Amino acid sequence: MTTAALDLTADVVELTRALVDTPSESGAEGPLADAVEAALRALPHLTVDRVGHSVVARTALGRAERVIVAGHLDTVPAAGNLPARLADGRLYGLGACDMKGGVAVALRLAAALTAPARDVTYVFYECEEVEGDRNGLHRIAADRPELLAADLAILMEPSDAGVEAGCQGVLCADVTVRGTRAHTARAWRGENAAHRSAEVLQALADHVPERVIVDGLEYREGLSAVAVRAGVAGNVVPDTCVISLNARFAPSRSPQEAEEYVRRIIPGGHEFVVTEVVPGALPGLDHAAVASLVDFLGVAPRPKLGWTDVARFTRLGVPALNFGPGDPVLAHTAGEFVEVGQLAECERKLGEWLRG
Amino acid sequence: MTTAALDLTADVVELTRALVDTPSESGAEGPLADAVEAALRALPHLTVDRVGHSVVARTALGRAERVIVAGHLDTVPAAGNLPARLADGRLYGLGACDMKGGVAVALRLAAALTAPARDVTYVFYECEEVEGDRNGLHRIAADRPELLAADLAILMEPSDAGVEAGCQGVLCADVTVRGTRAHTARAWRGENAAHRSAEVLQALADHVPERVIVDGLEYREGLSAVAVRAGVAGNVVPDTCVISLNARFAPSRSPQEAEEYVRRIIPGGHEFVVTEVVPGALPGLDHAAVASLVDFLGVAPRPKLGWTDVARFTRLGVPALNFGPGDPVLAHTAGEFVEVGQLAECERKLGEWLRG
Repeated sequence: MTTAALDLTADVVELTRALVDTPSESGAEGPLADAVEAALRALPHLTVDRVGHSVVARTALGRAERVIVAGHLDTVPAAGNLPARLADGRLYGLGACDMKGGVAVALRLAAALTAPARDVTYVFYECEEVEGDRNGLHRIAADRPELLAADLAILMEPSDAGVEAGCQGVLCADVTVRGTRAHTARAWRGENAAHRSAEVLQALADHVPERVIVDGLEYREGLSAVAVRAGVAGNVVPDTCVISLNARFAPSRSPQEAEEYVRRIIPGGHEFVVTEVVPGALPGLDHAAVASLVDFLGVAPRPKLGWTDVARFTRLGVPALNFGPGDPVLAHTAGEFVEVGQLAECERKLGEWLRG
Repeated sequence: MTTAALDLTADVVELTRALVDTPSESGAEGPLADAVEAALRALPHLTVDRVGHSVVARTALGRAERVIVAGHLDTVPAAGNLPARLADGRLYGLGACDMKGGVAVALRLAAALTAPARDVTYVFYECEEVEGDRNGLHRIAADRPELLAADLAILMEPSDAGVEAGCQGVLCADVTVRGTRAHTARAWRGENAAHRSAEVLQALADHVPERVIVDGLEYREGLSAVAVRAGVAGNVVPDTCVISLNARFAPSRSPQEAEEYVRRIIPGGHEFVVTEVVPGALPGLDHAAVASLVDFLGVAPRPKLGWTDVARFTRLGVPALNFGPGDPVLAHTAGEFVEVGQLAECERKLGEWLRG
């Protein structure tokens, strides 16, 4: 497949449309990364590096501050939502919201801002929608950590053109309830693990998640059974029932505190194994660069409830926030779209702040 | 594969061994059915018919009573338990208990009893261990119903050389608990179907099954969740949780009564769909032929808790019971065996009663 060259001087809506119409499901970002790289290499004010299917383009003006503007190139799988379609002031299509609209804004700024007041590192990366160890930022941090040095990272994830600060942590765990197998014709000889699991599910149903205030932002936690699996055969009392949990915890809790918290909610006597835990990120509204951007935008920061690469930057020592076009609730939906007005607004505001 | 001819004059243990060593998992009974058919056709006192991989052999002596002696030829899949092995007075191997020991007894009697006091119909049939519509008896009843006319059917299913009378019915149902999907980062926007299912599982855990007395026999009922399935993705609040039930009900309840009974136990507000229901069979100890055999054997009948083809014969209007060598609890276990002593005992007792 030949991918058309990207015209970074085109209108931001047309550029978003071109990005949407270049399919780039996770793992298949190659052609889009090639097009992005070629367009950026044509710009003499930028130094361009490529790591896998991620592209990094930097100004080198010797400014006092450096800001990362980042967006992932990949999308979740298509859901009958290609090609892009413009209607009623909205651009519909796979990735329009999450997050090719944000990528288009960043590409436009990369081309337009030849001498910003802050040095800028633009990062367009692969595999954000899949396992963390395939994530392009993870790979760049491992192979070329110097490319991610900055005073602030702005992730252009959909945040309705507002600022979403920090993000909640995620803890995944399996609770295994044991019993004893038996033929259902003699069920009393066994112990039904599915029946025993009622107490775990009831504890989850009864639990009222907390609302934690950090830096004035309310992080609403969650604890959900996302899977229940029991069953040996149609005539066998099951000896095992596995309940998979997904907990979202406020960034003020450490992963260890989150685990202790969840363990206290689950009735004892069952196996509890943490399968994954990633810390959240504190909002960091006291960082100078963060405060400057928030002041400039004149918006009240909101808490980010989902996990984003903001947490990854935080762990790398770079304060970060989400600021991008698109309603985050539309992400991963077949009907996702981005408001044309938000594309223009984000481009204008972020451009003004970077120009200084 | 060439299957060795069966020698029906061989010792019952050697004959059982030969049957075990002729593999016949459900659907692959052909070679064993061929061998059984050939051996029976060599006997001039029997009329032999073949239906699929089932073989029916009858005396036609004009006796006042006709008795069916039946055994299925198929086994569950092998579990490293072939070939047969004789040790400590036990014959081990796939199907030794369920139910090639019983088949061997029936074959020996078919060969030996040239002029029994009761006419006998020997039925060796296929596909008992799988779906009911593949069952050899089902097919014979459909294609050649006259072959199954009788005053009593003796199923040589393992019953520890005792009489197991009647059998419980089986009701399978799916309870579907509904909720609303949501991203786990905003779990409160959804309703977790797995959490809601706690009340169903708790009701099952709290339920104490009844013990129902019929004809002096105690049928101990059961109601088990045999499967629980919920889960959309690791970060999604599930909108559906399906709990599959397997109920065993006393033969004094009709299928409709059994369904009403189970519905009363499950909390309301959830979808309840019966996926399968098969009635049980009353013990029928008041039938003359049944009473005669039970008296002759001098054993106290026990209730059959699992479902067997006794129920199928009952529906065909033929009183039926289980009487065969082997401990029923060993059926379908890798270590199944049959006591050599029980093989001889069953052959002797049943032979004496049929001779009259």
